[in-house]
Amino acid sequence: MNNKIRVGIVGYGNLGRGVEKALTRNPDFELKAIFTRRQPDKFDNKGIVHISKLKEYQGQLDVVILCGGSATDLPEQGPMIASMFNTVDSFDTHAKIPEYFSKVDDAARKAGTLSIISVGWDPGLFSLNRLMAEAVLPEGKTYTFWGSGVSQGHSDAIRRVSGVKNAIQYTVPVEDAIERVRTGENPELSTREKHIRVCYVVPEEGADLSRIESEIKNMPNYFADYDTTVNFITEEELKAKHSGMPHGGFVIRTGATDAGTKQKIEFNLALDSNPEFTGSVLVAYARAIFRMAKEGQTGARTVFDIPPAYLSPKSAEELRLELL
Amino acid sequence: MNNKIRVGIVGYGNLGRGVEKALTRNPDFELKAIFTRRQPDKFDNKGIVHISKLKEYQGQLDVVILCGGSATDLPEQGPMIASMFNTVDSFDTHAKIPEYFSKVDDAARKAGTLSIISVGWDPGLFSLNRLMAEAVLPEGKTYTFWGSGVSQGHSDAIRRVSGVKNAIQYTVPVEDAIERVRTGENPELSTREKHIRVCYVVPEEGADLSRIESEIKNMPNYFADYDTTVNFITEEELKAKHSGMPHGGFVIRTGATDAGTKQKIEFNLALDSNPEFTGSVLVAYARAIFRMAKEGQTGARTVFDIPPAYLSPKSAEELRLELL
Repeated sequence: MNNKIRVGIVGYGNLGRGVEKALTRNPDFELKAIFTRRQPDKFDNKGIVHISKLKEYQGQLDVVILCGGSATDLPEQGPMIASMFNTVDSFDTHAKIPEYFSKVDDAARKAGTLSIISVGWDPGLFSLNRLMAEAVLPEGKTYTFWGSGVSQGHSDAIRRVSGVKNAIQYTVPVEDAIERVRTGENPELSTREKHIRVCYVVPEEGADLSRIESEIKNMPNYFADYDTTVNFITEEELKAKHSGMPHGGFVIRTGATDAGTKQKIEFNLALDSNPEFTGSVLVAYARAIFRMAKEGQTGARTVFDIPPAYLSPKSAEELRLELL
Repeated sequence: MNNKIRVGIVGYGNLGRGVEKALTRNPDFELKAIFTRRQPDKFDNKGIVHISKLKEYQGQLDVVILCGGSATDLPEQGPMIASMFNTVDSFDTHAKIPEYFSKVDDAARKAGTLSIISVGWDPGLFSLNRLMAEAVLPEGKTYTFWGSGVSQGHSDAIRRVSGVKNAIQYTVPVEDAIERVRTGENPELSTREKHIRVCYVVPEEGADLSRIESEIKNMPNYFADYDTTVNFITEEELKAKHSGMPHGGFVIRTGATDAGTKQKIEFNLALDSNPEFTGSVLVAYARAIFRMAKEGQTGARTVFDIPPAYLSPKSAEELRLELL
């Protein structure tokens, strides 16, 4: 008898591949199929199936990990797939979380399935640390810094500037601001003081570099509120030096437990690969959802609702003995 | 109607005072009484009651926070008080956790109460981070460093050396070792390579300083396996510069999600006051225990079993909106 957690992946972009890799490091899972909207025969991987066949897998998958984007994929797929399977997703459009939670919750309750939304590192592990730090130090202030890491949205925005052939943008936290936060100074930091934006741009031949630089630096919402540097490089250099997907960041809360008694709680991540790390978090939460669903729980959850023990393959006794 | 969580504190040493301070920063709690084995009239504080009266408070306390020591107080008090009240404690004798858990669990199940053991930062928040990091990065290695901070056990050991009037000992993590861990080098670190021990000793008049220094440095278990420095100072200097109780530490896991893809998860604390911070953690978990007991849960728990949302005074909707 096979006791492995049978899992499906929906979406085979960077995140889907990250989940696929993470599953190879978690022997209590069995990857049954990867579902895509593209032509499955375009992939070498034999386990790839067209998404139209998802329904046929009912009863064969313990949990489905949704790896689509938050803009258009998940708002549609989340509630729909929750009506057939237990699901895990990384929905990260912050303003729409209440609405999305409610739709997934309705679908899952009706179907008797269990779903967790907004899993990853932010939202996800960073959110957990914000909650824990605030609960432990009610008198204090929490700061979140992101980076150094690639922002896909900002990279795309640069690519839309005329004369730009290719581009990548790194969000970089200001080291001095982090240090001020760590000392417990509780600074009020403007957007400009917290992060800088560093762009690597491949221009089209003969393009006006100073116009491109100026258009980027003055772009409202994306760059105008930041100190931005623009570096022009060749396509070869971009491929050679900037094709990884590193990221990371910091959640720091400083607070007081008495007059003059400062306390600092810090959580930070340094990631060579953002999608592989996010995929690894999704797999740990898939384990929790599988177990909680087995207990008969239904509806939608977030990371705030999951007892940490459910994330580990170890038993409660092992956890108390080895990790407490 | 008063909806506050009615709490009692047992033990009025450093930790009990830390809990008392933490409660003033958590307006959903009401401190009903502090129980002590000493003569209550020795304290200015009006809410202090002799521990023999604890039984009379049944039905008047929603949760009792145990602030005694792990060596002799908690093994006796934990199961005994769990048979009357919901409890939170900071039991930290690692080797005896399974036995202690089982005794508290038995007492609480029989009495229909709920208890959480081993709460604080280590065991406690550090344990949680070890669990989460290992669950997310199964291929990797976790390191825990402590300090800089006062070790009460090591300070006591120095005070037992003849010719020593007073002493305090700081455990200090080796910065270079932390940096090697952070780079993902996965070093094998000996005890000596991870921490150094720094002692401030007040000698008795006319004592042989070099004998004292040698006795400390060669003391088995406590100092022999470490690089130890001994500084002789006056009682006045000890009082002026070393009467705080700072502490802190680091939990760092580095791992790989693919060949050559390094990922780092780090949690660290820098605490001006160890007992006030530990007290603050105990109060947050007292909130969780109160809520879970209200749902009808009984028996013993650890931090691994608590859904994080239960730690915060905010509603699930507020948490999703503000912190996710």
